[in-house]
Amino acid sequence: MQALRLGIIGVGLIGGSLAKDLKLRGFANHVFGVDLNKENLELAKKIEIVDRHGPLTEVVKNVDIIVIATPVNVISKILPTILDLISDDVTVTDMGSTKKAIALSVKGHPKRDQYVASHPMAGTENSGAGAALSGLFDHKAAVICDQNESSDHHLNRVRLMYQTLKMRIIEMTSFEHDQHAAFVSHLSHISSFVLATTVLDKEKNKETIFNLAGGGFESTVRLAKSSPEMWAPIFEQNREDVLIALEAYREHLDRFYESLKNENYEETKKIMEESNKIRKVLSKINTNSTREES
Amino acid sequence: MQALRLGIIGVGLIGGSLAKDLKLRGFANHVFGVDLNKENLELAKKIEIVDRHGPLTEVVKNVDIIVIATPVNVISKILPTILDLISDDVTVTDMGSTKKAIALSVKGHPKRDQYVASHPMAGTENSGAGAALSGLFDHKAAVICDQNESSDHHLNRVRLMYQTLKMRIIEMTSFEHDQHAAFVSHLSHISSFVLATTVLDKEKNKETIFNLAGGGFESTVRLAKSSPEMWAPIFEQNREDVLIALEAYREHLDRFYESLKNENYEETKKIMEESNKIRKVLSKINTNSTREES
Repeated sequence: MQALRLGIIGVGLIGGSLAKDLKLRGFANHVFGVDLNKENLELAKKIEIVDRHGPLTEVVKNVDIIVIATPVNVISKILPTILDLISDDVTVTDMGSTKKAIALSVKGHPKRDQYVASHPMAGTENSGAGAALSGLFDHKAAVICDQNESSDHHLNRVRLMYQTLKMRIIEMTSFEHDQHAAFVSHLSHISSFVLATTVLDKEKNKETIFNLAGGGFESTVRLAKSSPEMWAPIFEQNREDVLIALEAYREHLDRFYESLKNENYEETKKIMEESNKIRKVLSKINTNSTREES
Repeated sequence: MQALRLGIIGVGLIGGSLAKDLKLRGFANHVFGVDLNKENLELAKKIEIVDRHGPLTEVVKNVDIIVIATPVNVISKILPTILDLISDDVTVTDMGSTKKAIALSVKGHPKRDQYVASHPMAGTENSGAGAALSGLFDHKAAVICDQNESSDHHLNRVRLMYQTLKMRIIEMTSFEHDQHAAFVSHLSHISSFVLATTVLDKEKNKETIFNLAGGGFESTVRLAKSSPEMWAPIFEQNREDVLIALEAYREHLDRFYESLKNENYEETKKIMEESNKIRKVLSKINTNSTREES
């Protein structure tokens, strides 16, 4: 393939990991970084994630493909401006965890076909360029949304980008994406945030948590370390679907609570047996991917 | 140290992992296994976790220390019988995730001082002798409860056992243990069981979960694979404290839900910032232990 000049808006965990592997694997030959956090940008330069950095008005003139990897509220804000600024052959994609609100921000834009809506289902609880990891995306899923709105040329570039990252590409509408993401991704984060605040609130002596936490607590609460700056806008943009997911979660929680309250242990056991079915679903993931935990 | 003859009642993940390391590290020179599941026992023999197996009446006559690693309802049931059967120099301990109900089962027993109540805070979501792992307990915490009820000779043996397993020993009452365990351990399991049933219930097409699950969902839902046979009796024995923990969790969940429902994103962000404090508590664990996820 012909190596491209890559622009990364937001050189954090996602943008940084992506830049690393796309250059390493020959998709990009030059990485131009934009980031509001100067310290982070200097770090990205120092650890050679970006070759050059500068303002947005500069990057749009010097790259073939732009990847926006900022918090989702910033994506909706700058995406129309970026489309305004680019020439006809430049491709734009984003890494946002929500898709509906972002799609809306460029609905009917004359250059809409140069934008490919996407969401790679990968990440860790850490943030910033220093958290960037080679191989972060390998064997995970990348969702491309509303592909009919993008032209083939730009779609193919983004597909090639995800193939270079060794990702499985899945296509759906931005509506479908947000519904499923609310359950499979956003809800995990909330259950983890809530577990952390509950335990921190109860255990005034933090030494007790340290003393008693085993690997189980640690893995369940891991996402509670995630960045509020990244996640508050996700919950805001996907508010309706997240509320639906939370209502469903609360119903299932109440079912468990009632079974215990009523000493209906057959029911408690039945809930656990149902939940055990997740093992089969996840084992398929583990067969196909590098496990984070192994 | 003088090597002891070790009896393991319930040769599963916990009993098996313990037997492996205690023999490897010279605490035990002979392991005698008891298990109701013959297939599991044959496997334990085959993979050399146990040297010999037989009925409970046989093991009590041929070992120096007995470790009960069955589900907690079985512990409360067989612990008094085991105390009835053993001679004066035999030590008994258990690995139960609850302590109050078990303590009650031997309250006032003439041989109560030969029993040391304990709970090693370690495990994985897998079960059976085949899941046994060397190093499972290293650098984790072992709780010893109601130590005044046990004689020094037997306490010291159990302490030495946990030191051999490279565990940090913490002492508290069985009442304190159950309260803290409800929040730090049992609640993690329930939030994970509930997340699994919610997502499995919503996503009728299991392919969608497979397609969209990233490392975040996987780690949050990992405990949902845990054994219902092991966990139903834990929730039953620690019912009151678990209900209190669930009520607190539900309050924190409602607080998150309301913040989103009312579009009070400052509050949503504040909850996440509070929950981020768990990072500092957990980083202390990671500095001191082998991380499961690294």
